[in-house]
Amino acid sequence: MGAPASDRPIVVDGLQINNWDRAVLEQLRNGGVHGVNATCAVWEGPAETLRAIGDWYALAGENPDLVVLAETVEEIRRAKDDGRVAVLLGFQNSSPFGDDYRMVEVFHRLGVRVAQLTYNIQNLVGGACYDPEDSGLTRFGGYVIDEMNRVGMLVDLSHVGNRTSRDAIEKSAAPVAITHANPTWFLDHPRNKPAEVIRALAARGGVIGCCLYPNVLGGETTTRAEFCRMVAALAGEIGPEHVAIGSDCTCNWSPDFVGWLRNGRWRPPSANPVRPEWPKWPSWFSGPADFPAITEGLLEAGLDEAAMKLVLGENWLRLFGEVFDGVTA
Amino acid sequence: MGAPASDRPIVVDGLQINNWDRAVLEQLRNGGVHGVNATCAVWEGPAETLRAIGDWYALAGENPDLVVLAETVEEIRRAKDDGRVAVLLGFQNSSPFGDDYRMVEVFHRLGVRVAQLTYNIQNLVGGACYDPEDSGLTRFGGYVIDEMNRVGMLVDLSHVGNRTSRDAIEKSAAPVAITHANPTWFLDHPRNKPAEVIRALAARGGVIGCCLYPNVLGGETTTRAEFCRMVAALAGEIGPEHVAIGSDCTCNWSPDFVGWLRNGRWRPPSANPVRPEWPKWPSWFSGPADFPAITEGLLEAGLDEAAMKLVLGENWLRLFGEVFDGVTA
Repeated sequence: MGAPASDRPIVVDGLQINNWDRAVLEQLRNGGVHGVNATCAVWEGPAETLRAIGDWYALAGENPDLVVLAETVEEIRRAKDDGRVAVLLGFQNSSPFGDDYRMVEVFHRLGVRVAQLTYNIQNLVGGACYDPEDSGLTRFGGYVIDEMNRVGMLVDLSHVGNRTSRDAIEKSAAPVAITHANPTWFLDHPRNKPAEVIRALAARGGVIGCCLYPNVLGGETTTRAEFCRMVAALAGEIGPEHVAIGSDCTCNWSPDFVGWLRNGRWRPPSANPVRPEWPKWPSWFSGPADFPAITEGLLEAGLDEAAMKLVLGENWLRLFGEVFDGVTA
Repeated sequence: MGAPASDRPIVVDGLQINNWDRAVLEQLRNGGVHGVNATCAVWEGPAETLRAIGDWYALAGENPDLVVLAETVEEIRRAKDDGRVAVLLGFQNSSPFGDDYRMVEVFHRLGVRVAQLTYNIQNLVGGACYDPEDSGLTRFGGYVIDEMNRVGMLVDLSHVGNRTSRDAIEKSAAPVAITHANPTWFLDHPRNKPAEVIRALAARGGVIGCCLYPNVLGGETTTRAEFCRMVAALAGEIGPEHVAIGSDCTCNWSPDFVGWLRNGRWRPPSANPVRPEWPKWPSWFSGPADFPAITEGLLEAGLDEAAMKLVLGENWLRLFGEVFDGVTA
């Protein structure tokens, strides 16, 4: 590891949903994470999301040595050179758009570059991964994707239902992402993705970020070798240019936040049969500081240097570059 | 018609969506309409709906001789005796509840007594009548209906998709309404209702308000006799205790409002192939002042005095009475 910093691979994480503060940002820098899609809305509506973005502006303003709010690939590459962490503001829901497709442009102007279409339940845009029924992409959802394509915002399908995902891949003029999920052949879980969705995504130039969140990983006992072999096998299956990492790190939250993620405001907490608790993370990856372990593991799993660089960051940057300029109709 | 006022049938309209002011309220009084479900939200979210309700409080406060905001059956009956119009605040969408089932109780406290689950497009609660796909009642939608049952708010299925309608009829512990639509056997239109939905509604004690809006009536050339024969035939089919009137009067609006109803904020107006225009109403029913013509027509169509009273108002009052007290789980 004696290579100069400029030769080291750039590391970009497809998604983290931490309770962000300086200490958490330092964990990313210590782990060599140069860029990250940081969730700033899950259930929030338009007005609440404005506040969350205001919080990010304040945090970035207070820590200019450590973090930069990035809107372009160039800013992420520059952050690596500067020893800073580049943060892309992202949504895990289309709830910030409310019922108005024009809010896509509003939030793009404010710096948001990634938006997942649905979070766990059916919404105005489409169906989600836990829904017993999935409406498919709705008519409104089609206009939302048109706008995201136009302004240059990445469509994320991670918590989206399979039918809506297939519809969105077909509808989008730009390639799309699954920022944080695994194939169902690795773990059969509603949050993971069947082969037909992953293959359709890859065929249109998209990228899937393999995910370390314990519930979609198989729990804390899953080994680093098992995870990295899965990444390597997926790269063999769909091509190394379509595979990346989306850790789904959840640092610094109290247990209450799990309840918020699970129940939002859509059901009485008493109606949820599962008690909200954070799952235990594996010992070899407990947070953003453990990213170097992934690099080692991927090489051990047989990825060559070039593929490893793609998976660690270059695939996300290639995809961001293709999306962020926008598509003229 | 020399009977004393107290013997005349009480007239309750299942839905009007006027641009309300004193002149419009006078039309209702002149037409002998004693109670009406008045739409105060179509696409509005929670905060916008608070303003619309505030507007109603102001209008009622300025015209105490003419209108009363009613929350009970007793207040509607009293309005007839007082020569005033009783207004029930109603929604044509669940958008005022946002993503929070607890907003049902909030708006109930503010006086809202009727809420349609969806308006024309898929939302968080379910699918709508114009959707190519209907998710059915969602999990969130189930909790919304539980709350509506509990606090005593009438579920309206008028613009709701057929699948979601069937689910809602089954889910609701209280009988439900179609406040303004006709049977598809009268006019095959997405806004009208197939026999299986109407029969399921009636079997659970619900009421359908036959609708005079030209697009679901067959246009301005449909005659009063045709409309009234339809009402009489439907009463024969499902029982006169399940049939009522929901005129869908749209007084005092500019053409812009049709564009708002059609497109909301969910699509660019340019994407709507149909130019928004108000349809022409039939000469025999151009607004709330023409309600006496319906009474005459129903008798001509063969309804007896008892059935006519049910259809003109008593069925709505019976249903309101069953719903408004709420259901204890």
